[in-house]
Formats: sequence, structure tokens, C-alpha cells
Amino acid sequence: MEHREVAAETPIRFETHPSRYVHWRLELEPPVARLIMDVREDRPLRPGYPLKTNSYDLGVDIELFDVIQRLRFEHPEVRVLVISSGKDRIFCSGANIYMLGSSTHAFKVNFCKYTNETRLALEDASAFSGLKSIAAVNGACAGGGYELALACDEILLVDDSSSAVSLPEVPLLAVLPGTGGLTRVVDKRKVRRDLADVFSSLGEGIKGKRAVQWRLVDEAIPLSQFAARVSERARALAATATERGGPGVVLGPLEPTYAEDGIDYRHVSLKVDAATRVASLTVHAPPGDEPGTGAEMRQRGSELWALRAFRELDDALLELRFNRPEVGVILLKTRGEMARVLAVDAALEANRGDWFVSEVVHNMKRVLKRLDLTARSLIALIDEGSCFAGSLFELALAADRSYMLSLDAGPQVALSPANRGALPMSNGLSRLQTRFLAGLPELDFGSGYDAEAALAAGLVSFAPDAIDWEDEVRLAIEERASLSPDALTGMEANLRFAGPETLETKIFGRLSAWQNWIFQRPNAVGETGALTLYGKPERARFNWART
Amino acid sequence: MEHREVAAETPIRFETHPSRYVHWRLELEPPVARLIMDVREDRPLRPGYPLKTNSYDLGVDIELFDVIQRLRFEHPEVRVLVISSGKDRIFCSGANIYMLGSSTHAFKVNFCKYTNETRLALEDASAFSGLKSIAAVNGACAGGGYELALACDEILLVDDSSSAVSLPEVPLLAVLPGTGGLTRVVDKRKVRRDLADVFSSLGEGIKGKRAVQWRLVDEAIPLSQFAARVSERARALAATATERGGPGVVLGPLEPTYAEDGIDYRHVSLKVDAATRVASLTVHAPPGDEPGTGAEMRQRGSELWALRAFRELDDALLELRFNRPEVGVILLKTRGEMARVLAVDAALEANRGDWFVSEVVHNMKRVLKRLDLTARSLIALIDEGSCFAGSLFELALAADRSYMLSLDAGPQVALSPANRGALPMSNGLSRLQTRFLAGLPELDFGSGYDAEAALAAGLVSFAPDAIDWEDEVRLAIEERASLSPDALTGMEANLRFAGPETLETKIFGRLSAWQNWIFQRPNAVGETGALTLYGKPERARFNWART
Repeated sequence: MEHREVAAETPIRFETHPSRYVHWRLELEPPVARLIMDVREDRPLRPGYPLKTNSYDLGVDIELFDVIQRLRFEHPEVRVLVISSGKDRIFCSGANIYMLGSSTHAFKVNFCKYTNETRLALEDASAFSGLKSIAAVNGACAGGGYELALACDEILLVDDSSSAVSLPEVPLLAVLPGTGGLTRVVDKRKVRRDLADVFSSLGEGIKGKRAVQWRLVDEAIPLSQFAARVSERARALAATATERGGPGVVLGPLEPTYAEDGIDYRHVSLKVDAATRVASLTVHAPPGDEPGTGAEMRQRGSELWALRAFRELDDALLELRFNRPEVGVILLKTRGEMARVLAVDAALEANRGDWFVSEVVHNMKRVLKRLDLTARSLIALIDEGSCFAGSLFELALAADRSYMLSLDAGPQVALSPANRGALPMSNGLSRLQTRFLAGLPELDFGSGYDAEAALAAGLVSFAPDAIDWEDEVRLAIEERASLSPDALTGMEANLRFAGPETLETKIFGRLSAWQNWIFQRPNAVGETGALTLYGKPERARFNWART
Repeated sequence: MEHREVAAETPIRFETHPSRYVHWRLELEPPVARLIMDVREDRPLRPGYPLKTNSYDLGVDIELFDVIQRLRFEHPEVRVLVISSGKDRIFCSGANIYMLGSSTHAFKVNFCKYTNETRLALEDASAFSGLKSIAAVNGACAGGGYELALACDEILLVDDSSSAVSLPEVPLLAVLPGTGGLTRVVDKRKVRRDLADVFSSLGEGIKGKRAVQWRLVDEAIPLSQFAARVSERARALAATATERGGPGVVLGPLEPTYAEDGIDYRHVSLKVDAATRVASLTVHAPPGDEPGTGAEMRQRGSELWALRAFRELDDALLELRFNRPEVGVILLKTRGEMARVLAVDAALEANRGDWFVSEVVHNMKRVLKRLDLTARSLIALIDEGSCFAGSLFELALAADRSYMLSLDAGPQVALSPANRGALPMSNGLSRLQTRFLAGLPELDFGSGYDAEAALAAGLVSFAPDAIDWEDEVRLAIEERASLSPDALTGMEANLRFAGPETLETKIFGRLSAWQNWIFQRPNAVGETGALTLYGKPERARFNWART
């Protein structure tokens, strides 16, 4: 039943465009945008499961992610996003069960990670772009549907006999809600834990006033007044959001070149060695001068290096996650002139008040978080010709370890204002703070560090000289690639996020780990497991031993 | 190969006594106690694996837990515990691999949970009893051995060619260190994450000065000076610890009565219905007046209700975890006079300055944490004759949900100072704070709440009247017992610990979940998995797909 090689058979592409949306309709009525989920049953990402009752698969979520990205860049005039459904009496029934049931464990896990990142993107847009969101729940709202609503700032529910919110995963499927539901119920909406317990073990969900009393939704409104009330709340939220001075910046296509062994973008290249299961991911510094003022940057638009390079990096990371499942080690490299990267960082820092510049920086932040959350071993190679400076030095800080070539007049690394906290990790700290939890040493922001100085300052892990470089790096990569992929995933998930915990780290660290565990338990995915037997006449049969 | 029914075949007993220790020697030289690990290879908890090279199984850890408990109660004059090994050139080689390889998944998970609780008990003793600990690492210290050292306040390492600290689980066994190692390395000792990455993927470990530089140990000392330096550090730590006025209080035996369907203790009874997989755990209030002053309480010693009842509860929880794996629902009940429980709480509160009283309260705290961390559904039944007041009301707050009988002159619940923060959860909050994350309502500490008032105040989940009580409670229990045990474990682990995260919640919530996941991956426990093939000539063969 497992669809083992979905990735290899048909590569999944993550770029899309409003003109190609299949499952969503976006209606712009600034300052409000209405996003209507109307999933095309006959257009799943791969054949084999109809997307009934507004259920979603990765293809549906790729479009949603694109909507949120474009609203931030292309429509600064929009300040409230109202999400509703185009179906009768169904808001969204969550992730498609047959898709889940027929996917590999690795695909399920990566699918949930991506949907989590999309929900967090909604919350990030609310926090940092003043793009508030309302879930206008005009029908049954189950599982992943309710998890989408939970990511919005407000949840308004029709008060009638068919509109209920529910998390039926535990009772119906013997798995957990996969997209942050349990965490958001108790930690974001602060639902009392005993009521959350009842709610999450109840297949049919909670309706109307009780849903409000339990804090599961913000309001329950009779159908006759629903549209008016949603509009009223949208206007009220729009009035509280920060104004962003348009016009918007259109996100152009990335137009990468695909080859058997990788992808070439303008500033990023990905090369995969299938035999050794090692990939090289190289980010190039700007090839020329980048603009220095907000106005010039907006004019450069999506061709701006800081925007384009990180959008390309984002796409490459998704390629690795979904289409290259056997790659175990990613070598992070950079090429180009450090001075140009530092100039970019300085210009971004100097223009943080500009809405577009702010969006560019927040996008860099989200892409770097996607890197932190990518379950592959990351090794930064700071070799000749590299330019690990400022925002690109974040790649080295994100790596599980780094090797820097020690050579007279050899490579340098440099810090910039971008390393001071503009690009925080999911734990809320900068990567420097996370690296130096025992206490931030005195660091030189501005001038470069050669290998010896970087090693002494604790900025890199190792600094072999030219004689040792090749052997030491090769051995490290070979050793890493020889270890159990699962053990490495768990190890990295625990070592990368020391320090404080946030809603995000709780979702990715705690909730996802439990979900992953349950996703491979026989009670869920075994022959008589609940996920396997969903929709069949036979009832699930459980092994009752509690773990 | 899996040893499916270890629990049912030979019940594991958790009570022990220094006179019966097999694996540890305790030498008292107040203010120092020396604890020597000298595991008897031929005395495993069950036959089938020799405990070579100071490796441990649950039996070894049961004794260690007993040592820590007794030092706190019986030896207030001891202020520093020095842990070392009785073997030549080996400190401790961690959990026994053959024991792990031949245990069920559920046993492995529960074994790790118990060892985690024991390590946390060491840290709790340091924080709240001023009982500091030193790991005097006089030899190879691998895996769980290093995790034991990590739980101590200081780690002193012999600086020679054979003494190294290591976490070789990932490279050698394809699993994670199971007892908090990764978390303590980066979060407690604040080892740089890239160095932690190198350390945790290196089979042979780190020695001498490098171990100090990387913060893995506090000092590396030549063998010739080791004993003297350990004594010096022990005296120095003893000088900083708070004095506790003796004499100690001996912990008497619990002497329970075992039956097929449960256990009867003095104040606690456990009844198991194997057919429905439901257990009733009943705690009785003091049968008479309890002492009111510290001196009187010390005189009552381990017969003091607040100490004995919670020690019994602790033992019953371990019985459920290890010997009753199929019990899915635990009904928490109380019986007796509320006024007596409230009087106990008042006396404990009034005498918190007394070292013994403080120990009694901290023990209650630890037992309640053990309850929070017990992976079974907890339903509190507040019925006629019950006495959910103060410290016993914590049982209802720890429950996943609670049902209170609504009846004229029916049962009441009451709050006491014990609910205000003296018995915090692993997340650092009181159970009331965790319940009311949205904001603590105004609560009445002292007088009782009847069902209607308790429901209105949010203190109980449901308050059926006498007509509905039986059906509503029966249905809730039946429904709960019918759900997937795995999904419930994951759901409860996420809903019980909302709010802040601590080292403890990180270990139990995040690290353990990843460990559980990996513990059932074919790369670890499959036919060609690394854990399965450990010690055999054949090499592990992995599925390389990364998840």
C-alpha cells in the first residue's frame, strides 16, 4: 500500500502563480482580501485519491503558501485576510486521509512539516506585516481545517446545526492532528486542558456557544448575520493593522534549470551526488552592486539579490526535502565577494523602516528557519572563494558544524548587523545567541576573521590547514553519511534548538516528534490500524499495551 | 526476539533497602557520602543478559533511586554525594544493550522514563535539599554513564588514556541517548551546538583537556591527584550547601498486600479490571489526627500520612507502568474526611522551614510529577465520600478530566495553600496555573465548592446529577478505553504540559518523543538494524531515506 517512491517518480514543484491556482480563489477588496477554499476534487497532486469535501493535499497547501507570500509582497494594501470555503456547509475537512494512508512515512512527516510552516507563515504575516487573518468558518471544520483556522487571528463560526470545529484525528484515525492543533488549542488559544482533552477525543466536534465558552472559536454567529459580522470584524481588524505604503512588488518567476543531478538558479545552485548521498548547496553573493535605498530596492523588486537568492534557497530546500529523500548530508557553500554581502546587510539594516525591506528581511528569516528545520545534516564548508559574511554567515551558524580552511590570505568570515537578531531562529534567539548559550563572547562586527581567529572566537568548528583540509572534510562527510538517518534526524532536532521554547519549537520539536512516532505505530498504519482501515467497513483492531 | 510479556511473567517490585543493594555501595562520611557503582554482572533483573562493564538495567536504577530518596530523608547530615565506580578503568558503560535489544518497545520507553526520573531526582535533591553531587569519573564513561554524570552538579574526569566521556548511541546503536543526554549537553552544560554535534556522533568520546574546553566536564585531573581533588571539591561543595538539622527519618517498608487484581497499601488501593482495562486508584485521607508541628511530624517519621500515602501512590504508579501495561484508564478517587487533608496541608505549610517537612512536600511534588508523566488516561471521579481537598485536589487537577457528582449535600472539593505553587508540575507552574493559562480566576482558598460552584469556577470538567452520573461516567470511561493507546499517549503528552518549557519538559516532551520514534525505526530495531545487530559480526544495513 505504501507509495514508496512518489518523490523520484514525479518531482514536486513548489513555485506557482495566481494564474495557475486550482484550489483557491483570491478576491481583493482592499484593505480586505477574501480567500475562498474550493478544492477541486479531481485535481490531487498525484492520482489515486479524490480531494473530497474540501480536503487538502500538498498541492493545495503549496497554493496557500503562495497566496500568503504574494499578499505580503504584492499587496501591501491588504491588511486583513478572510479565509472561508466555497463549498456548501463544509469549511474544510482537513488533510486527505487516503493521501495520508497511501503515503510513505517520510512523505507524511514532510507534508506535515510543510503545512506547519504554512500555518506559521500566516502567524508571521500577522505579527510582522500587520496582515491579520480571520477564519470565517461557514461549515464543518475538521482536523487540518480547524488547524488552519487556529493559525488565524480570529475564528468566527456559523451558529447552526452543521457548523462545528473538531479535531477527530485521535478517535477516528488513531493519529494526532498533524499541524499544530493540540499545541495551538492549549498554548495559543489557552483552552483549558481538560476541555481540550474532551474536544480532541470527540469525533463530532463542538458547535455554537459551547465552542465560544471553551475558547475554541471567538464568536458563533447565526447564518443570517454571518457575512455582515465577518465584514465588520475585518474592517475592525484592518483599522488596527499598521499601514504599509504601496505599491506592491511582484514576485517574478525563478526560472531554474533542472538537471538529473541538481538545479541551477540565478544565485543558488544545488548539485546532488546520488552515489554518496551528499548534496552541495551553493549561494552566490550579488554579482554586482545592489541598491542602497528603500526606493531603489523596491524598484529592483523581486530581482533584488536579498529577495531572489533567498527565494531560490527556499525552493532548493523544498526540492531536497521532497524530491531527494536519500540525500543525507548537505554541504553549505558560498561564492563571491564578501564586501557585497556586507553592503546588502548594511542597506537592509539602514532601511528596516521601509515595508518592502522589512518583508525582504522577514523572508530571509523564514527561509533560514526552513533550513534549521530541514532534517538533513548540514555541514558548512568555508573554503577559498567563499563569502560567509553577515546574512550568509547565518548558513554557517545554521550548520550542524563548520570547517574553515586555514591558509595565509585564505578565506575569511565576517559578522554584520544581520547576525544580531534580525534573523531569529524558531526559538526566538539569534543563531549567535543559540550558539553561545553559555555567554556571548566579545565579537567583532564588521571586519573579517581568518580561520585561526574564527576558531579562537568559536565561530567555526574546525580549521584544518591546506594539507589536512581534503582528508578531514572528506572523512567527516563520509562518516556522517554512514550513520542512521533516523538517529541523525532525532539528534539534530534536539541539538539545533537549545535555549527557550516557543509555540514554533513546541510544534516542531514536541508535537511533531509524537506525531512521527504515532505515524508509524501499528495501531495507526498497521494492517488493522485505524488510518489504514479508514473508510472501510472493517473496524480498527488495537494492541492495547500503553506506551 | 522481543520479550513480550516481561511484566506479566515476573512483576517488578520497586521497593528496596540498603541491606538488599546488589549493585551499589554507599559509604557515609558526613558531610560526604560516597556511592560506588559496582554492578554485579550475574544479577540482571531478568535472565538473559549479563550486566558487563558496569552497564545497568532497571534493577540497578531502582537501587539508585532508593539511595537518593534515603539520603534526603535518612541522612540530612550528608551534603555531598560523590558517585564513582568500583570497576577498573570503567566508570559506567550505560544501559545494557542486550537488555534494550530484547525488550519490548513499551518496556524500553518506560525504562527510559524511569531512569530520567532518577536523574531528575538527583537534580531535585541538589536544588531543594542542598544535596550536591559530584561524578568522579574514574574510567570510561559512555552513554547512560555520561548521562548519569550530566545529572550531577560537577563532573571530574581522570586525565589519562582510558577515561573519556561519550554518547556513542547514534553512531553505534542508531538510537538516541535515552536519558536526557542531548538536552543536558546543550541546555544544562551549554556545550556549543556544533561541538555537541561532533561529540554525539563520535563513538570513542572525548578525553582530558578537550573535554574541559568543550564544557563536557568541569575538570580533567591526573590519576595521581584525582582522589585528593575529588575530596577537595566535595568539601568545597559541602561548605556551600544549606545545613539540614538532623537526625534523619528512616523510611519504613510499605508492606503492601498483592492480589491478582491489585494492591492494597495502608492509605492507597489499586484495583484493576483486566477485562475493561480500567484501574481504580484510591487515596484515603488520614484516618485520624495528624501531627501539627515539625518536631511531631519528624517523630511520626515515615508513618506520617503525607509521606506514607504519597510513597504508596508512587509505588502504585510504577506498578501500573511496568506490571499493568494494558490498563488504559486510571480512575482517580479519594475517600475520607476533607478536613483532615486540609489540616495536613496547613501543618505542612506552617512548617516549611523544617527540613523534614520540606522533604515531605518535595516528595509529594515528585510523586505528582510521576502521575503527570504516566502515559495512561487519568479521570478523576469526585463522588460521595471523596475528599479532593488541597494536596489531594492536585489529583483531580492532574487528571485529563474530572467528573463531580452534583447532589444536595453531596461531595465538595476545596483548595488549600498546597494548590498555590508548593507542588509545581514539570513546566514550573502549579497545576492551577497550567489549568487556567488564560488567566487565574478568583478562587476561594479554604472553604469548599459544591459541584455547581466547582463547575462554574472551572475546577471540574463535568458535574452530572445523580440521575445522569452513572451513565455519563460509564460512557466516558468506555469511550476512552476504546481509543488507540498510542494516539492517547501522544495527545496527553501534548495537552498536559501547556505553558513554559523547562529542562524537564524538554526531556520528557521533546527528547523522549524523538527517542520513542527512533526506538521503533527499522534502522534501529529491524532485522538489520544497529540495535539488533549490536555485538554481532554483521554490520547494520540502513534504509537511507531521511525523514
